[in-house]
Amino acid sequence: MELKDIGEFGFIKRFAHKFDKLIGKEEMGIGDDCALLPLNDTETYVVTTDLLIEDIHFLKTKITPEDLGHKSLAVSLSDIAAMGAYPKFSFLSLGVPKQTSVEYLDAFMNGYQKLSEKYHTPLMGGDTTKSSDKLMINVVVVGQCKKSEVRLRSMAKDGDLICVTGNLGDSAGGLHVLLNNAALTGESESLVKKHHNPEPRIKEGIWLSNQNSVHAMMDISDGISSDLMHILNASQKSANIDVKQLPISSLLQNMAKKYAWNEIELASSGGEDYELLFTVDRKDIDRLHKEYKSRFTDEISVIGEIKQGQAEIKWFENGNEISINKSGFNHFANS
Amino acid sequence: MELKDIGEFGFIKRFAHKFDKLIGKEEMGIGDDCALLPLNDTETYVVTTDLLIEDIHFLKTKITPEDLGHKSLAVSLSDIAAMGAYPKFSFLSLGVPKQTSVEYLDAFMNGYQKLSEKYHTPLMGGDTTKSSDKLMINVVVVGQCKKSEVRLRSMAKDGDLICVTGNLGDSAGGLHVLLNNAALTGESESLVKKHHNPEPRIKEGIWLSNQNSVHAMMDISDGISSDLMHILNASQKSANIDVKQLPISSLLQNMAKKYAWNEIELASSGGEDYELLFTVDRKDIDRLHKEYKSRFTDEISVIGEIKQGQAEIKWFENGNEISINKSGFNHFANS
Repeated sequence: MELKDIGEFGFIKRFAHKFDKLIGKEEMGIGDDCALLPLNDTETYVVTTDLLIEDIHFLKTKITPEDLGHKSLAVSLSDIAAMGAYPKFSFLSLGVPKQTSVEYLDAFMNGYQKLSEKYHTPLMGGDTTKSSDKLMINVVVVGQCKKSEVRLRSMAKDGDLICVTGNLGDSAGGLHVLLNNAALTGESESLVKKHHNPEPRIKEGIWLSNQNSVHAMMDISDGISSDLMHILNASQKSANIDVKQLPISSLLQNMAKKYAWNEIELASSGGEDYELLFTVDRKDIDRLHKEYKSRFTDEISVIGEIKQGQAEIKWFENGNEISINKSGFNHFANS
Repeated sequence: MELKDIGEFGFIKRFAHKFDKLIGKEEMGIGDDCALLPLNDTETYVVTTDLLIEDIHFLKTKITPEDLGHKSLAVSLSDIAAMGAYPKFSFLSLGVPKQTSVEYLDAFMNGYQKLSEKYHTPLMGGDTTKSSDKLMINVVVVGQCKKSEVRLRSMAKDGDLICVTGNLGDSAGGLHVLLNNAALTGESESLVKKHHNPEPRIKEGIWLSNQNSVHAMMDISDGISSDLMHILNASQKSANIDVKQLPISSLLQNMAKKYAWNEIELASSGGEDYELLFTVDRKDIDRLHKEYKSRFTDEISVIGEIKQGQAEIKWFENGNEISINKSGFNHFANS
């Protein structure tokens, strides 16, 4: 049996439970955006780690080293945001092909450092070593959060509305542009920028986790068709999603028309949006919507609701149930 | 300019200082075996990360997956030991070539888990993703330590004796056996086992850090000719080393005779011993030696002394200064 037959999550299931007996009170291990490590009576550390590998997660010829440095840190910061935490420290491991120029690495570190400064998150350590041919990047971020404000995937409640920040699918559109070597016009370049320069929703995550009406939360890295399933599995709930409510930028709509892309598929299964996906008590949605809009540059969109039942997503369009082609991204099955 | 021209430490120097202003009191970043993250009034977290890449750090055909799982965790536990801390949590990122069998990965996780249990250190999270052709493994370990017992590289004092635990060079001997495809007799197999199954000196490190007379401490991963320089640079001291005092096992002596290996070079520059290197007030050495021996299965050996002066190692043999060929291992210059 090969790993691609069971996928990342199938593999994790084989060993995760074996560590349960070693995990103490006030600690939480595998299964959410971050692990929880004890800090003090009122606060907890949260820790996430992400591995990015050349030709799997990025194409060195398509992304500048500055953007790559930014993105390497941003994807982990996004996991911190998803817990309702703020970032404190990072650790960076680099496997570097020996022909890599120091100038390339300086530019990479420059992008990494700029984002570190923005979120006041020093690089505290790491490891740099030779790799045979591919650049590989592992980032760990440690964040901090009030215990009472940690938001987990398991916290969704019956009747909650399902919401997202910002727009969905722009990043996947940018990837389409890159992979198809489309001409970089203003529009396509903006999508590529969304793909290469994700902005972690740190402030938004902290504000949302301050709201009692916000229950489950996670970040959107693989697309909602896959990510929402984590909330449903952890909360043992079902979900109805209205594809007409998926927030799709006019930019992506234009490009989708122009190039005959399926915008619903990009928005639901494209991945790498690094927006926040959360569930909220419907009684508070109007206030939440208004206050969020007054504080931030984007909006929150209601895309569906949490239902009782086994973990599954039902997709609707104009009231009719439909099926969505891709059910999330499995690195191992792909290519 | 390529990375191999400046090496890992030359690269780190280019950016490490840029994060200094973001690092707060009670925190310590790049430059020791571990970073320090605040915990409470009396204790601190310590954090280390290590990246292992197929064909750079290990040969998949030479090491069993169980041993690889063990070693991947052991090398980071060794950094925890070097601070005088005990391990608490680990995080594991795996980049896996898609043709890897699930059985191989199960065996890897089995080796990892056994060592986790031995040191009561649960795996709390990680990331698993596809890699194009090489297996890559990044391990992060978080440990905990009384603040008063943290041992840093910068703590060496004039006149301190320089000591190591256990024997030096066995692991490098094991690597010689593997690379030369020597026959696996009892002796050569024992050396290979030292290379593949390092035992982190957790208990020894905790006991040593409890002794006021023990000043600077670190673990030996690249060989003392390289590692001791970190203590000397951090403490702004010089060192005299007596190569006749390097603890070399009778096993390695036998093999060195048999295959005409340079045992002094293996013991001084071989690397991957994962023993502890520390400096100690000479007035306490007899007591320390005796008490260590009564508690542990190995001994400590005095190999030299700390002197005033600029950071350099002077090597002596029978009272005469000699030169040692290799000055530590630079991944990037190699091959």
